[in-house]
Amino acid sequence: MTEKNNNKTLIKTVSLTPPSLQDNTADAERLIRAIKSHLRTNTVDIDLYLLRRLPGLLRKWNYNVRCIFLKDRTRWILTGITSSIDTIPIAGLAVDLGTTKVVLRIIDLSTDTILAEHTFDNPQIAVGPDILTRIHYSDQDEGLKKINRLIIDGLNQMIEKSCSSCNIKPDNIYAVSVAGNTAMTHLFMGLNPYWIIREPYIPVVNKPGLIKAKELGINVNPLARVIIFPNVGSYFGGDLIAGILFSGIDKKEDVSILVDVGTNAEVLLGNKHWLVACAGAAGPALEGGVTKMGMLAGPGVIDRITIDPVTFNIKAHTIEDEPPKGICGSGLIDLAACLFLYGIIDIRGKFVPSMCGNRLKDKDGMKYYVVVPASESGTGSDLIISQADLDSLIRSKAAMYTILETITSSVGMSLKDLSTFFVAGTFGSYINPKSAIAIGMLPDLPVDSYKALGNSSLGGATMAIRSNDCLNEIDNIRDKITYLELNVNQEFMNRFSAAKFLPHTDNSLFPSVKHSRSRLET
Amino acid sequence: MTEKNNNKTLIKTVSLTPPSLQDNTADAERLIRAIKSHLRTNTVDIDLYLLRRLPGLLRKWNYNVRCIFLKDRTRWILTGITSSIDTIPIAGLAVDLGTTKVVLRIIDLSTDTILAEHTFDNPQIAVGPDILTRIHYSDQDEGLKKINRLIIDGLNQMIEKSCSSCNIKPDNIYAVSVAGNTAMTHLFMGLNPYWIIREPYIPVVNKPGLIKAKELGINVNPLARVIIFPNVGSYFGGDLIAGILFSGIDKKEDVSILVDVGTNAEVLLGNKHWLVACAGAAGPALEGGVTKMGMLAGPGVIDRITIDPVTFNIKAHTIEDEPPKGICGSGLIDLAACLFLYGIIDIRGKFVPSMCGNRLKDKDGMKYYVVVPASESGTGSDLIISQADLDSLIRSKAAMYTILETITSSVGMSLKDLSTFFVAGTFGSYINPKSAIAIGMLPDLPVDSYKALGNSSLGGATMAIRSNDCLNEIDNIRDKITYLELNVNQEFMNRFSAAKFLPHTDNSLFPSVKHSRSRLET
Repeated sequence: MTEKNNNKTLIKTVSLTPPSLQDNTADAERLIRAIKSHLRTNTVDIDLYLLRRLPGLLRKWNYNVRCIFLKDRTRWILTGITSSIDTIPIAGLAVDLGTTKVVLRIIDLSTDTILAEHTFDNPQIAVGPDILTRIHYSDQDEGLKKINRLIIDGLNQMIEKSCSSCNIKPDNIYAVSVAGNTAMTHLFMGLNPYWIIREPYIPVVNKPGLIKAKELGINVNPLARVIIFPNVGSYFGGDLIAGILFSGIDKKEDVSILVDVGTNAEVLLGNKHWLVACAGAAGPALEGGVTKMGMLAGPGVIDRITIDPVTFNIKAHTIEDEPPKGICGSGLIDLAACLFLYGIIDIRGKFVPSMCGNRLKDKDGMKYYVVVPASESGTGSDLIISQADLDSLIRSKAAMYTILETITSSVGMSLKDLSTFFVAGTFGSYINPKSAIAIGMLPDLPVDSYKALGNSSLGGATMAIRSNDCLNEIDNIRDKITYLELNVNQEFMNRFSAAKFLPHTDNSLFPSVKHSRSRLET
Repeated sequence: MTEKNNNKTLIKTVSLTPPSLQDNTADAERLIRAIKSHLRTNTVDIDLYLLRRLPGLLRKWNYNVRCIFLKDRTRWILTGITSSIDTIPIAGLAVDLGTTKVVLRIIDLSTDTILAEHTFDNPQIAVGPDILTRIHYSDQDEGLKKINRLIIDGLNQMIEKSCSSCNIKPDNIYAVSVAGNTAMTHLFMGLNPYWIIREPYIPVVNKPGLIKAKELGINVNPLARVIIFPNVGSYFGGDLIAGILFSGIDKKEDVSILVDVGTNAEVLLGNKHWLVACAGAAGPALEGGVTKMGMLAGPGVIDRITIDPVTFNIKAHTIEDEPPKGICGSGLIDLAACLFLYGIIDIRGKFVPSMCGNRLKDKDGMKYYVVVPASESGTGSDLIISQADLDSLIRSKAAMYTILETITSSVGMSLKDLSTFFVAGTFGSYINPKSAIAIGMLPDLPVDSYKALGNSSLGGATMAIRSNDCLNEIDNIRDKITYLELNVNQEFMNRFSAAKFLPHTDNSLFPSVKHSRSRLET
């Protein structure tokens, strides 16, 4: 999670020896000579675009210039030049290219300050909210071109806005990094995603590397390059590689795990020597998406729940303290944990009527529990959780735990051997690890082993843009990953069945939960 | 002069393992994996343009493809891909970018066959026949853009014609190489040549390297790259570097010299260990440009002259055996040599009236000699050479010899130590070394030491386009050259004065000439 990086994007202010009859080196080579000791190379590529302007610029600035370099895999590229006394920031742009939301962050590369950060809806939502619809659309006549234009135009508009919000110009952006899943990255580059969703699920490219912003249609400085995060395959994209970079797992001696919690759980396990990854469906229940009262985080949404140990009254904390209107994923996990720890549901997740008081109701043969009565809710109705909601949540948490157990045992380790458990994603930031442990969704590690990464995709993209040699590091991370295909075989099903209990059939795996429950039972 | 080259442009036909669930490597990396053993690298850059087409092409061709690669300084670039059963030639284009004439040569890169060769007038002549006028013009408003468009448009038209002459399409050209002098190269790239002609004479770039054809506006395959020959400075351009490459001087153990004879004499001396270059004005007389009857080579132009040793009658050979209309450079040197060897002019180059018979005339106090009487000429007038013409020729030949002597002595050598004397340029091909030695323009080396290179600029450009790693070799040649500034100091003037005699004040330097003359004098 360290953001410290000594290999900062290389910005060098140099004074060139002005030309003379004794030293008639050309302008370009004169510049390269002045900075080559900093780069330890003689090979610096200068675009024709800049070559055409170089003689005028060098003379106008009296041979005192500030240069911006980016390292491609095997060569340095001069991506910008300003007067040495120019005080306009040399900026970088990090992009988290989400399927739903796109986040832009503008960074002052000389000071590492964040100048602006803006989120906008991915304009491709107009085509379809999900990836599949968009991929099918891009197979239609001109579809790929149109869907590519949607995201490129959207980005350009947002770049314009973000820049004016921090008083810079798009032209001041000399480096861009983009982290997104494999499909979003393909659509961003205008690459045909057709084969990504068809067996055997082949991307066009795994390691796109550095591409000219101009070629991609991104309106920043015409010399700027775009670092595009690589993918391991269709299911393990650049957003996760960015997350790994951001977590620093690949630099630690101890073995850590990184989980991006969501409908699809993407998991990475490893250390500086090896990395294993897998992805599997955990179910939308974890995001609060299937319950009646489930909704995305926002004002009035319950994000934290506790139960008064004496009155058994539920205390629901809402975002911005508004009257409760619904519940988000983290609230739901808290709720299930409380219900379980206070004996309101049993180890199968079924309501225990004797413990529910008058909160347990029945409708059309389905039991439900009133979390917030209509009198206290922001909707005028009871906020409820049904037995079906709970069953669904338990299947999701069981799937999550099974995936974690499977990947860990695939390398002959046990979950308790993990030194750090990184939880990525915005949703991951809100989860209370104690609750997730209580229901057996996450392993029973010391609570301080859990580290929320927040938007790790954006974090990784930011690190890349700040570094002068990130491409090799990112490539190395990507190449080090062994992708584990999750086979839903008998062993997996056995694990899943055992995990469908709260917290698990094997109580010894969750000593802290046993302890909490035992206190209750005394 | 060797054209043999084992590092041919890399064209590889490969069969990729089709993707499977067990092997889901992306299309791009699958291709790179299939050819990496041939290139001994994992880093092959593929343009976005090609990435966008790759999935369709690989599947259409059933994973059997022919790939074309070019090596940049530090990386390989995939510049083309065809079906493995495609029989259309993979072509390269070599360009000799002359100030007056531009020569295009299309090469089939798989067979090394020359498919077409065409010459056209540099369309920039419309702006001005000489470099200076063009440089001044390019300083006007939009001048650089206009003069750049002239050559680019001209090239594109000629590429179109040349391609249709050999039944290929411009799209079949995957590599281009361009050799021209420093100013022409600048105008070709759209680089401002302003500072090239102003003290201290600084080019924009010495080593332009590889540039995308598309960026330069050249209409060939959109993935093609253009190799642009580097320069040492304003006076020693890419045409000469190409000439060195073509001559192979930089690979020989013995010391050779290469001379591009013309108004400006460009000279290179060296071997595989070192290279020294200089350039100096030799005067237009060597090209036949100042004499009354001087003209460029063409039908009816005298290119060879002998004198009947008995009758002293001049035998003039004309191009295409038409009645003589004028004389070109090689003919003029033959003429001067004959006049001298037969005693018609003395060692100062002055007419010896007693030896001239009735061919010597006088007009306004200036003596002249009738080379071809009006009755035999193709113009209806006498073809004559005046004393002033001879004086001018002698100044030019003296300048040439002095330059040769100066560069050779700068490395502590003498002209007689040279193993090979390469004469470059079309004009160089026509010079009779015996005549040039007779007047003391070239040193008295065995005649078979002289090797005419013909269009060595085009020859070098052809070699570059055929090689898979020429850029480093060309860079190395360029970097190895020490440029010697010719100071017109007392020593130079002393040498010049001595060389203003026929063949020289020091007869011992020209034993073969002394021998010829002595035969005559007996």
